[in-house]
Amino acid sequence: MAEHVTVCEVGPRDGLQMARTIMATPAKIAWIRTIAAAGVREIEVGSFVPPKLIPQMADTAEVVRATVNLPGVTIVALAPNLRGAMGAYEAGAHRVSIPVSVSEGHSRANLNRSPMEQGEEVGHIIQWVRAQPRRMEVEAACSTAFGCSIDGVVPEAAVLRVAEALAAHQPDTLALADTVGYANPAQVKSLVRATRAAVGKVFTGLHLHDTMGLGLANALAGLEEGIRDFDSALAGLGGCPFAPGASGNIVTEDLVFMLESMGFATGIDLAKLLEARRPLHEGLPAEPMHSQVAKAGIPKTFRAAA
Amino acid sequence: MAEHVTVCEVGPRDGLQMARTIMATPAKIAWIRTIAAAGVREIEVGSFVPPKLIPQMADTAEVVRATVNLPGVTIVALAPNLRGAMGAYEAGAHRVSIPVSVSEGHSRANLNRSPMEQGEEVGHIIQWVRAQPRRMEVEAACSTAFGCSIDGVVPEAAVLRVAEALAAHQPDTLALADTVGYANPAQVKSLVRATRAAVGKVFTGLHLHDTMGLGLANALAGLEEGIRDFDSALAGLGGCPFAPGASGNIVTEDLVFMLESMGFATGIDLAKLLEARRPLHEGLPAEPMHSQVAKAGIPKTFRAAA
Repeated sequence: MAEHVTVCEVGPRDGLQMARTIMATPAKIAWIRTIAAAGVREIEVGSFVPPKLIPQMADTAEVVRATVNLPGVTIVALAPNLRGAMGAYEAGAHRVSIPVSVSEGHSRANLNRSPMEQGEEVGHIIQWVRAQPRRMEVEAACSTAFGCSIDGVVPEAAVLRVAEALAAHQPDTLALADTVGYANPAQVKSLVRATRAAVGKVFTGLHLHDTMGLGLANALAGLEEGIRDFDSALAGLGGCPFAPGASGNIVTEDLVFMLESMGFATGIDLAKLLEARRPLHEGLPAEPMHSQVAKAGIPKTFRAAA
Repeated sequence: MAEHVTVCEVGPRDGLQMARTIMATPAKIAWIRTIAAAGVREIEVGSFVPPKLIPQMADTAEVVRATVNLPGVTIVALAPNLRGAMGAYEAGAHRVSIPVSVSEGHSRANLNRSPMEQGEEVGHIIQWVRAQPRRMEVEAACSTAFGCSIDGVVPEAAVLRVAEALAAHQPDTLALADTVGYANPAQVKSLVRATRAAVGKVFTGLHLHDTMGLGLANALAGLEEGIRDFDSALAGLGGCPFAPGASGNIVTEDLVFMLESMGFATGIDLAKLLEARRPLHEGLPAEPMHSQVAKAGIPKTFRAAA
């Protein structure tokens, strides 16, 4: 019996918010359905942020409502503050993900708050969410945990300080995010170990970007340290605001190919996953689409994990 | 003191032989010089094969003669048979690399010989080379060691049988090649261990392709198993004859970025290495050039290993 690894598709959020054009709501919903049909069981479908700041995400409530009843699928929404978390709750999201930038510069640029102030906000959100009649999971994510395009090197001690502050509020899960894609495998191993030592089992996930081409090597490093939850985006959608031409999240197709080839069961049908590229392309024809597996085709030696 | 990892640039051979157009000899030589100027200390500059079969390599003798005196650089040439090895010797190559396909289908398609017949040829080559007055290293490479686009799965036992047959002829070094890019990290670890157990220290190198996007993850897997010799190609030049649009060798720029970021010293100056992309592009303007590091730029957090 193969060990399970969870792949959370974040393309509809992290990918689309970086896209040059806006994907129409029906196209988004159709795309998310094909992702679910391929067996993906966690999908981050949007973020509750001011539409003036990120117009690509203006329809998130509608997208959540249209997908939240897909059988067996956990629908995730990002929210940077209590107001956004309330929106996620009202729309019916199963999980809300709250980003907390570890680096001061990124935190101030994105939210006009210090990392510790944003940590307090996570506390308020969790308090509010837990007081509601319906259960909604809360994930806290340490952004820029492996480096920052503004502040540069992010010391491990700074990550642990933020992770410990977040863990004190008892989120359901805690993740580390390589927001700008600066991580290397040695760093991933070191920080995963240190974070687990600091906060324990609440730390479960890695959110990686492929900016420098090391995305899957970093995922492998996390996998070897026991991480079993990875975010990724179909077609490596997205990008990096500071690096034109750079890739976005690690590529779901290639990640699933790696995991299944190594004997880890994702529950995802790789051939069907490749089919989910079509509605993405139809909805966003101008967006570059990555994936080496898609370019080369699934090799005849591939066998999904049992 | 950082541990050293050797990166052998194979773009001028494995990359150019797959290119759609032919790079002019002076452009090749100029390009190889810029690669050497970046600190690369092993360069595979061509192959001694019939020009009718691979016209891109027709000038290999001239390229070897023009580069063999670059200070401190080991100039490597590929040769599939004794005749080719004689050519490499006459031109002054420091090392000849002899491919032996592990899969019957690939071996017959490429050389019209069985793997074991080609293994015999390696024996003849080593015998001849060792009888010459000038020393020339001989590397034997097990091609299609991780899967074959013709035969499909290549059993580990078949690789070990070929590796043992080659080791019996006492080449200077032995490498495993993922010729078509089907490997996954678990397989790399398993086969590296098994090969080392079977033939010992003569096995030193990995030649990896990025067909499925797993190239650097596979390199990391090899690195973790103690491999300290990797082949790669600038800009991921090349491709895969069976998969249009697929990538070629793992990308030298991104590999060096990963290794140095992890604290392994390659002796290569990453900024200068990126400059070596220009003469490549000038010599082969139509060829697609990969490298995430080149697209995103070297991040401000990057520090070369000491």
